[in-house]
This record gives sequence, C-alpha cells and structure tokens, in this order.
Amino acid sequence: MSTKNGKYATIHYSNYLQLDKVLGAQHLRSSDLEESPAHDEMLFIVIHQVYELWFKQIIHELTSVVQMFNTDDVDEKNISTAVSRLKRVIEIQEVLIKQIHVLETLTPLDFLDFRNYLFPASGFQSFQFRMVESLLGLREEDRITYNNKRYDAEFDPEQQKQLQDVLAHRTLFDAIEDWLERTPFLKVGDFQFLDRYRNAVMVMIEKEQKAIRQSDYLSEHEKEMRLRMLGTTDTFFESILDENVHAKMIEKGELRLSYRATLAALLIRVYRDEPILQMPYNLLTNIVEIDELFTTWRYRHSQMVLRMLGRKIGTGGSSGYDYLHATAVKHHIFWDFHNISTLLIPRSEIPALPIELKRQLGFYFTDQ
Amino acid sequence: MSTKNGKYATIHYSNYLQLDKVLGAQHLRSSDLEESPAHDEMLFIVIHQVYELWFKQIIHELTSVVQMFNTDDVDEKNISTAVSRLKRVIEIQEVLIKQIHVLETLTPLDFLDFRNYLFPASGFQSFQFRMVESLLGLREEDRITYNNKRYDAEFDPEQQKQLQDVLAHRTLFDAIEDWLERTPFLKVGDFQFLDRYRNAVMVMIEKEQKAIRQSDYLSEHEKEMRLRMLGTTDTFFESILDENVHAKMIEKGELRLSYRATLAALLIRVYRDEPILQMPYNLLTNIVEIDELFTTWRYRHSQMVLRMLGRKIGTGGSSGYDYLHATAVKHHIFWDFHNISTLLIPRSEIPALPIELKRQLGFYFTDQ
Amino acid sequence: MSTKNGKYATIHYSNYLQLDKVLGAQHLRSSDLEESPAHDEMLFIVIHQVYELWFKQIIHELTSVVQMFNTDDVDEKNISTAVSRLKRVIEIQEVLIKQIHVLETLTPLDFLDFRNYLFPASGFQSFQFRMVESLLGLREEDRITYNNKRYDAEFDPEQQKQLQDVLAHRTLFDAIEDWLERTPFLKVGDFQFLDRYRNAVMVMIEKEQKAIRQSDYLSEHEKEMRLRMLGTTDTFFESILDENVHAKMIEKGELRLSYRATLAALLIRVYRDEPILQMPYNLLTNIVEIDELFTTWRYRHSQMVLRMLGRKIGTGGSSGYDYLHATAVKHHIFWDFHNISTLLIPRSEIPALPIELKRQLGFYFTDQ
Amino acid sequence: MSTKNGKYATIHYSNYLQLDKVLGAQHLRSSDLEESPAHDEMLFIVIHQVYELWFKQIIHELTSVVQMFNTDDVDEKNISTAVSRLKRVIEIQEVLIKQIHVLETLTPLDFLDFRNYLFPASGFQSFQFRMVESLLGLREEDRITYNNKRYDAEFDPEQQKQLQDVLAHRTLFDAIEDWLERTPFLKVGDFQFLDRYRNAVMVMIEKEQKAIRQSDYLSEHEKEMRLRMLGTTDTFFESILDENVHAKMIEKGELRLSYRATLAALLIRVYRDEPILQMPYNLLTNIVEIDELFTTWRYRHSQMVLRMLGRKIGTGGSSGYDYLHATAVKHHIFWDFHNISTLLIPRSEIPALPIELKRQLGFYFTDQ
Repeated sequence: MSTKNGKYATIHYSNYLQLDKVLGAQHLRSSDLEESPAHDEMLFIVIHQVYELWFKQIIHELTSVVQMFNTDDVDEKNISTAVSRLKRVIEIQEVLIKQIHVLETLTPLDFLDFRNYLFPASGFQSFQFRMVESLLGLREEDRITYNNKRYDAEFDPEQQKQLQDVLAHRTLFDAIEDWLERTPFLKVGDFQFLDRYRNAVMVMIEKEQKAIRQSDYLSEHEKEMRLRMLGTTDTFFESILDENVHAKMIEKGELRLSYRATLAALLIRVYRDEPILQMPYNLLTNIVEIDELFTTWRYRHSQMVLRMLGRKIGTGGSSGYDYLHATAVKHHIFWDFHNISTLLIPRSEIPALPIELKRQLGFYFTDQ
Repeated sequence: MSTKNGKYATIHYSNYLQLDKVLGAQHLRSSDLEESPAHDEMLFIVIHQVYELWFKQIIHELTSVVQMFNTDDVDEKNISTAVSRLKRVIEIQEVLIKQIHVLETLTPLDFLDFRNYLFPASGFQSFQFRMVESLLGLREEDRITYNNKRYDAEFDPEQQKQLQDVLAHRTLFDAIEDWLERTPFLKVGDFQFLDRYRNAVMVMIEKEQKAIRQSDYLSEHEKEMRLRMLGTTDTFFESILDENVHAKMIEKGELRLSYRATLAALLIRVYRDEPILQMPYNLLTNIVEIDELFTTWRYRHSQMVLRMLGRKIGTGGSSGYDYLHATAVKHHIFWDFHNISTLLIPRSEIPALPIELKRQLGFYFTDQ
Repeated sequence: MSTKNGKYATIHYSNYLQLDKVLGAQHLRSSDLEESPAHDEMLFIVIHQVYELWFKQIIHELTSVVQMFNTDDVDEKNISTAVSRLKRVIEIQEVLIKQIHVLETLTPLDFLDFRNYLFPASGFQSFQFRMVESLLGLREEDRITYNNKRYDAEFDPEQQKQLQDVLAHRTLFDAIEDWLERTPFLKVGDFQFLDRYRNAVMVMIEKEQKAIRQSDYLSEHEKEMRLRMLGTTDTFFESILDENVHAKMIEKGELRLSYRATLAALLIRVYRDEPILQMPYNLLTNIVEIDELFTTWRYRHSQMVLRMLGRKIGTGGSSGYDYLHATAVKHHIFWDFHNISTLLIPRSEIPALPIELKRQLGFYFTDQ
Repeated sequence: MSTKNGKYATIHYSNYLQLDKVLGAQHLRSSDLEESPAHDEMLFIVIHQVYELWFKQIIHELTSVVQMFNTDDVDEKNISTAVSRLKRVIEIQEVLIKQIHVLETLTPLDFLDFRNYLFPASGFQSFQFRMVESLLGLREEDRITYNNKRYDAEFDPEQQKQLQDVLAHRTLFDAIEDWLERTPFLKVGDFQFLDRYRNAVMVMIEKEQKAIRQSDYLSEHEKEMRLRMLGTTDTFFESILDENVHAKMIEKGELRLSYRATLAALLIRVYRDEPILQMPYNLLTNIVEIDELFTTWRYRHSQMVLRMLGRKIGTGGSSGYDYLHATAVKHHIFWDFHNISTLLIPRSEIPALPIELKRQLGFYFTDQ
C-alpha cells in the first residue's frame, strides 16, 4: 500500500479493488459434499455477497448523514449533501430490488440441489442488514420476532454492542426529529404557523360543507358521501390541531414523531416552495422514499421466497414467506411522514405568508 | 379507410394511429372550473389514458390465449405462442409498474389543486381493469368488497354482461386447469406418476430423518429443529398424496385448483427438462409471474396512494390505501401454482423415468 | 361537460378520460386487407399511441418551463418548479425506454405479417416528436437529413408554422442560455469569477507538473503520460480562459453556448453547494439528463430496429437502423453542458469565496 | 470447512459468504494520502467490486454453456439449460446497466477529490471483463486498440494464457456456429431448405413488384420508392442464395458466420414454431440479447464517462469517452445473427413443410 509520499505511486486496478480477496471468497458447499457441485450455488453465493457490499455502502452513507444532523448547528450546505447521499441510497435500493430478477432465475428445483447444505444459515444472520434497519430507526420493540429469538441473537457481543450504540446514540429517525424540532419558523414574529393553519382548515371545511349542501347536481346520497369524506379526515386533523390528541396517539403507539417535529414537517410540506425550505423538503421526500423502497424490497423478497419455497420453512428454520411478508408492512419506520399527506390542504387555502417572513425565507441576494 | 383493393393505398402515421382522437381527448376539469387550470391535471389524465391503452392490449393478449386453450385439442404450437403472448403481458406489467414513478412526480400538494373536481370518479370504475382480473380468473367471491358495492356496480348492463360471460365461459384459470387435467402423462403404461412420487417422498423423508438423528455435528436442539422443518411440510405433501385431504382443502377454500390439475402441474415442474414439458413449464412460469406482477402493481399502487393521500379516503370515497393494500394479497389468483414449490423434492430423489416413457416425452427426431 | 356552476357535478372515470375516443382508435389495417387480422398489429398501434400520449405530456412540461424562463425576471420559486417538471420528463423518458422491451416482444417474423400495410407511414412523421426536439433546441441545421427530405416535409402548413415559431421564439436551449447570461454572480464587488478561476487552474497545473517531475515512483514513461494527460485538457481550458478561442470554436460549430453563459454554468457547477446555486445546479443536471435519455432512447430504438428489420429499409423508405443510430449521437443538444465537466478542478483548488459574497449566496435567515 | 461426513455441520451466513474477506477489502487510497478521506471513494471501490463479482458469475455461466455445446452430441435437454443460463446472464446485464444510475450519483466534482490517486488504474485492466468478451467470441482483430496497447498487455502471463486458450479452444460464437452447422434439418429426404426458400423469395418479390406496378393508389414516385425498397434487400438475399457471394463477404470481413451455420440459423428463425426448433430459437434470441445488452452497457458507460470527465482523458490515460463509444458499436460480436432479420420473408410466403418432415420436427408423443 502506498504512503503519503507515494502520492504518485502507481496502482493496478486489481490491487486497488483487492480482487484476490473478493473473487477468492466463493466456496461452494456442494463441492465438498457432492461428487459434482451444484452449478447454481455460485449464483447464490455471489448475489448475497453483492447484497452485503451494497449494505456496506448504505451504512457508509447513512452513518455520514446521521453525523451531519447529530449536532445542534446543522450547516445548511450539509442539507444538500445529505439529500444527495440519501438519493444515492435510493439508487442502490433500486438495484437491490432489480437484483431479485436475477435470483429468480434460480428455480425451486435447482435450489433444492444445495439448499440442504446451507442449514441453518439464513439472511436473518446478516449483521449489516440489521445495522441498516437500526440506523434508520427501527427499534427493538417495533420488530416482528422470528422464532421467538431476539433480532441480534446470532451476532457476537461486539456486533450486539454496535447495534445497541446506534439505537442509543442516534438513528436517522432521531436525528431528523431533533433537527425538525429546532426549526425556527414555527413562530416568527407575529406569525404562528399553527394558528394560521388551524384557521385555514376550519375555513376550508366550512366552505366545502356549504358547497356540498347547496349543490344542485349531487343527490342526497352523494352529498352524504362527500360530507362523510370530509369528516373522516378529522382524526388526523385533530392530532395536529390539538397537542393532547397527539400525545394520546403517541401513548397508544399510533404515532411516534414528536408533536413539534410533526408541525415542522407539515410546515416544510406546506411552504416547500420557499427557497430555504426546498432542500429540507427534498430531504423529507428522500427519507420517505427510502422507507418505501425497503418496504418494497421486503415485499418482493417475500414474493420470491413464496415462489421458491412455497410455504416451506426457510433455511433458518423460519416460515420465510410469512415472516418476510409481515415485516414488509410492520418494519415501516417513517409512517408519520407519510401521514402528513393527510394533513395537507389545497394550495388555494394555504395561508399567505406575511411579506416580511417571506423575505426571511428567501435568499439574501435579490435583484430588487 | 382503405379497402381490400387498396392494399397499396398510402397511409400517414397520424391517420393510422388516429391521433386526432387520441390526442384530442384531454380535457382538464380545472380549466372549466378555475381561472387558471391546474398544470398537473394533464399528467393525471394522460397517465390514466396510457394505463387504459395498456389494459386494452392485455385483454387482447389474454383473450387470445384463453381461446387457444379453450378447446379439447390444443395445438402444441399454440403453447409456444401462448408463452410469447403471456411474456408480452409481463413486459407490459413491468411498464405499468415503472409508470408509478411518473405518477409519483405529482406531489400531494399539487394533486390537491384539482382533486376535488374528480369526485367521485376513481380507478374503481375502470371496466377494463375488472375485465383483466376476470379474464385471469378472479371470481366475484374472491374479491374484497369496496364500500359494500358490487365490483361491477358502476358499469352499464352491457359491460356487466361481458364480465359475467367471461366468468361463466372461461377464464385463464379455468382454461389452464382444464388443459392440465387432460395431460396424458400422469399414467402412461406402467408408469403412475403419483405412486412414484409418493414413494420418492417417503424415501426422502426417511433418509433425511435418519441422517439428522445420526449426525455428530448437530446439537439436540438443532436436530429437533431440522426434524420439525421436515415435519411442517407434511400438510402440503398430504394434500397431494391423498385426494381426500385435497378435497377437504378445496371445500374449506384453502385450495382452488382441482386435484388432477395439481398433479399435472407438479409433474410438469418435476420433469420440466423433458422436451415435451419445456414449453408447458414456461407457460406455468409465466402465469405465476403475471399473478405476481399484478400483486406488485397493486402493492406499489397502494404505497403511492399512501404517499399521496396519507390515509385520506380516495376520490371514489374509498379508503384507498387500505383497500388497495388488502387486494394486493387477497386478489392473488394462482396461489395454488405457487404452492407447488412446497411439493418439490430434490432432483436426486426424483424418480427416474422408464426409458420408453422418456423417449415418448422427447422429440420424434433423434440422431440415434 | 360541466361548467363553473357545476363544481360538484359528478363525473365518471370513463367520461373524464374520454375512453370512448381513446379506446376506439385502434383500427387494424390487416383486418381490412386480410381474412384474419394480424394479431400483433394491435400492439403496434397501441404502443405508438402510448408514445404519442407521452410526447404530449413532455411538450406540456417543456412548454411551461420555457415560458417560465422566457422572461427577464425569473421568479426564484419557479426554478424549483422547473426542476420538478424536468424531473417528470426524465421519469417519462425512463418509461419510454422501458417500453422498448414491450415492442421487442413483436418478433421480426410477426412484424412481417402486417408491415406491408403500413407503407409509407413511419415514426419520421410524428409531429409531436419533432416538436419535442425543437422545444429542446434542435435546430434545423443540426438535424441529420433523411432521404434528403426536410424534417418537416410531412407536416401540414399549420404544424410547420408551429415548429418554426418554437425555433424562432425560444427553445429550452435559448431560454436557459439567456437566463445563464443574466447571472449576476460572475462579478460581485471585487470578486471576478474568471480571474479567480484562471488563477486556480494555473496553480493546479503547475503543482501537478512539479509533483509528477519530482516523483520517485513514476517511470519516465509514466511521467510523460501523466504530463500529457494534463496537457490535453488545455484546449478546453483555453476555450474558457480566452474569449477569443471560444468565439472561434463557436464559428467552427464546435461550441454553441455563448461565452458568458458557459462561464455562468461553470460557476454554478463549481459553487453548487452555495444555497442560492443548489436549485440552478439541479436544473442544469436535469437538462443534461434529459439530453442523455433522448440519446439513449434513440440508441435503443436503433438497436430494436436492427433486431427487427436487420438492415432492411424502414416502413418510411429510410434505412432505419443507420439513420437512427446516427441521430443518437448527432442530435445531442446540450453537448456544451457535458463538456463543462472537462473544466472542473478539484475542490481543494477551488478558490474560496470572499466572506461577504458567501453571505450573499446564502439564505437571508441565519441563526447567527 | 466441512467435509463429506459433515453433511449436517452447521454453518453461519457470514462464514458461508466469507464476509470477512469481502467486506474487508475496501481500502480508500485517499485515506492514506489525505487528512480526511474522500467520502465518495468508498462508492467507487464498492461498485467496481460488485461489477467484478457479477463478471465472475457471467463467466461461470458462459463457460458452462460453451462446454455443453462444445461436443459433437449436444443433449437436447442441455439446450433448455443453456437457454436458462443465458437468460440469467441477461438478467445480470440488466443489473449492470441499472447500476450506472448509482455511479452517476458520484458527481464530477466529487470524483476529482480522489481521481488523482487512482492513476493509472482503469477498467481497461479488468481481466474478467476481457474474459467475458473473449468467451463470447470477440477476437483480438475485432478489438479497437487503446493507446496502441494489446488488450491483454496489463495482465500476467497466466492470465494471458487463459485468454488465449479461450480464443483457441472455443468461444460461444464458435460453439454455436459448430452446433448450427451440424443441424440435420437443412436437408431431410426430399426437403432442401435452400431450394424452398429461394423459390419463396422469388415468388414474393415478383408478386410484390407486380402489385406495386398495378396499383391505382400509388404515385409514380411512390411506386419507384417501393420498388427500390424491395431492391435494396437484394444484397442480403444474395448472400444467402449464393454461397459464393457469402464467401466473398466473409473474405472482406463483412460477415463472420459460416454459410451453413447462417442457413441453419435462418431455418430456425423461419420455422421457429415447430416444437423441436422452439428451444433453439430461444437460444439464438438470448444470444442476440446478450450481445445487445453489452452494447448498451458500453454505450451507457461511455455516456457516464462523458458526463463525469467531459472529454478529459481517463484514469488509464485513454480518452475514455471516445474509446468506449467506439467499442459500443465495434465490439458487437453476433452481428450476423441480427442480420438474419433482413432475410426473413412474410409468414404467408414461407414454404409449407412436407407432412412427414413436420411430424419429424414434432414430439414423439401425439394424441392422434
């Protein structure tokens, strides 16, 4: 390996990538145990190694983003960098999902040729995947248990400690929640976001109700439907209009994001066009996208297992399909950010910002 | 339009495609109702028209495939054609799924600009999508109801009749089931597939149990796990080894595919390498893929609705996310074909075919 | 159709989408001319109609973006909107490319079943695709001619006029060029971007040359290679460091973007992390992406034609593959934006901004 | 590592995948040479390692397919296996292409942070990629040279020998060509494929010419166009109708595939629906697809390099974009299989097979 002095030391592609290690790490169990190795075991090994390499990269990106936000004074430039790095995670996730097509070329019958030799190894033992989940903010209590084992039962103490540290010190969820809570825009001078928003919701609902009742075109049934449609959104509106309702929903486990952070996230969504909020808006969008893509990945993974094994139990002794399918929904981490959509009101009803605040949310430099 | 004599009449691209109709069919409701139309309503219209065009194509393909199989004497060549046409459906489905990315560029806030004008129109009113589902074999009793309405409540009598006809006359599920039941290979001369298969399963299980019990490497706990892992597959094996068990599962609604058809599908999976079974194998594979891709589409659709509307009820008055998410799992049609994976046994245990039968499953032409 | 009063008039999905028109516009020529229509002609019609619908949407987006920028006083908020709309175009392009997989399920042999009936219709006659190209900024002189015909020879006078108007009044290329030229940041107070940049380039090159010459690790050959590598970038650097060089390259047709606009685009790339430049940076990135994706689309299209027709001449009488393949490279519009990468210098060499300017490039609101 | 006796030895996921090696092989050069490592260098390393893992898998598949065909007596079952394995290669290629999106999240400016440390390593030094090209059948004389170096100049003698062995012993091109030449169907009993085909071409051309000349609908100009359109296909038809023309085109390097193999490939395309030809048809289709996807990959790679480096010369001292772009077209290996499309004639003109031959091309088993 080169040293500082060796800035211009030459390097060869295969040394730089340490290909001797990477390409020397495929040992087919079926070659030990059978006269002729199972041709398709190579694919099984290679694709899982590729998954692990991508997990390493995702951990690299998420860790750096959490660090950026895990400070009281987030540099505005960093938000843009964070957006880019999360976008990279998204592109990697798209590849992870695409790869399932490759794995699906391994047919159930071909898998049976070497499946027995893998016991009891299983993807459940992937430390890095657990780390990704923890870094994002999946708490132990949110996890679906698997054969009644702790999610970290298969790792060594050092790894268990690393997982604990992440959960204790800061996850992406925590870092973003803290950053949202620090948003200074909820109350600027005379502007109180919540008051304006509450008022707008009230006006909107009244206006709609009146229009529906007066309509000549709607049948009574349709009017009733429409009114009901307005009505069912109430619970969600209440959770934001009344801090106590929110507190109770937190208690019951229906919500996780703190009240103040939820308000801030709503403000960012509503006024996302203001220059200073554009990057924060992209940040929240990317986080929701990452959450969704892991959900999609789990879901596609469960489908693949269903096709491969039917409802047979997996190599780790779990009933793979059912476990994976359950995690697809349950291991959602950023639900509360999705739910904010329920709180949006049409642009025509959004309260206008006071001129002075508008200026403050803009760039310093203006042509005027 | 040209006539038979006009074989060489010239034609222009825009006439051929009737672009005056297709490109003249985008009328923004928000342009009637607001001073300035909502820019994004165009996307909403265009993407749904594109979806409907693709549904028309899918119906064109599925109908032709059902027709091919809906006869007592399926031409072998047709199987290859059917495989190609189903593959086309698969490629179209991939596009349908990909298009969700385009729809996701419509943000919740932008959607609110015109969402009100759409009421109560909703995708639930797509006749063609219902037709696709019916053609595949989704029966009325399998459907999740939506606001307590019949799935065809919004269609005119002619359309309702068309849907009924498909369900009555033949769906892809029915046509494939019938074709499978006619397979002549379950019993050829002395060869009885079921007997051979049953025997192989027994031998396999005994061998495995013995090996586990004698292993020096496994702890008692691991032995027990392994034995249990073998055991839990029993129900599935029983459903194929004992026609009565299968009959009961049909009664309880746990299975749908007839016993004989299931046996035939299993035989095709097990002996898929025999020349005459290669195309039938591809056929079954493509059907399972189509089933999965609609599931994926529904799932991705539900995710998109969640992001767009949160848990708000949809334009049709339904709670969109929950309904769509539920259909993703429930509207699976070819479950029984997935489950066959559970019945596969390792290649090393598959009973060898008698030489004469092997010859019969091959091509007429041989070099020998 | 509903009126203003009819705000709450109900509407059905199929009326809203005018499905009678859209789904009634598939007439198979082979059904006029043959006893049995060619099954696959339906796909041919449907996929081209889908392409045209997407082109309509792309035109809708591009037109709106050009309008936004086609003013002396671009609202900063609009940049964010433009970025989103161009992103939408990108997602649509991804779908257009994906669709080629569907078209590839039409095999050459199946295409021959109806290819004769299409003569001389061809994609060359798509008015909308020409409009997309013109809107982006493809000038007549940049076009590869096709059978010695003008690119608009097949359109009616009204359409020809529309194309001319776009080229005359403003294309995306023109609008962006003008906007770049108006950038106020090239000279702010004492800060002159070009001087700083020139200085940085000089320092960088000298430093590199010295380090290479003094290296103990490099062979003479390698040193020479490295020095040459530095050297060959000179032409590009000169084009930006010396306005006259740039002028000559414009004259020779090697460059198109004006000197001042090029400088501005370079500044945006170099200082892209400054808050006020983040959205402009995304804007330029999206434009380059759109340019690339059309190139990819043409390229994939040419590959598909090669597979379908070999080197046969196309339905319009053109030698399809060769024409399409040539346009893939030649119809690049934003080359100059790609080339800016050649002008970038490592971050460590980028001249620091004066504190006051840095403040001016930031948001009005700061915590400090 | 376990032994035969250890059939039931347990194994852990991380041992099975040798993750200590795979995940311990990322060493950032910028961490040796700079105070703070370049964050994005990790991505650069990881993605290239992933590419190399996939290349290993592709080599595994291609080698096995070549072996299957590299015998005088190809087992029919193997054709189906070969089709599946080539399909797997296709799915992997789709992932390779998709991954470019991930690499594109590395911006030019960020790349400059560590680009200098890589010199002169470059993808040109990837042994495995050369092996893939050679296995497919890319001969040394077909290669575009790069800085006047032999393509294997950077490899050690053992690797050079491996590449030579592949080229000498058999590539996929050679193996498929040989197998095609052995096709027994070109002449079966009285059936001579070439005679029938020649006759059909003649009849088709005459019929077309007559119809064009007699048309009332076509202008003289259009008639001429149409006739010319028929005419230009002549060269291609001659190359198959006249073995001498083919021989001359081989000499001039315009064709590579032997005359007899070309005839066989044409027969397979024309009669692809006959049962015994269905899998051979899929085989040829997959090979063409693989060829195209590598072309696409090279093309997208060149685009990415253009965006990243502009026209700067690459890390290996090559002018990356121009080299890669040139290989995209030039390194096509299976051109002759594409060109067969030019030789296809409409199904209505395809000579009917004699009943006896038709039977021979079918399955042994028939219901009749």
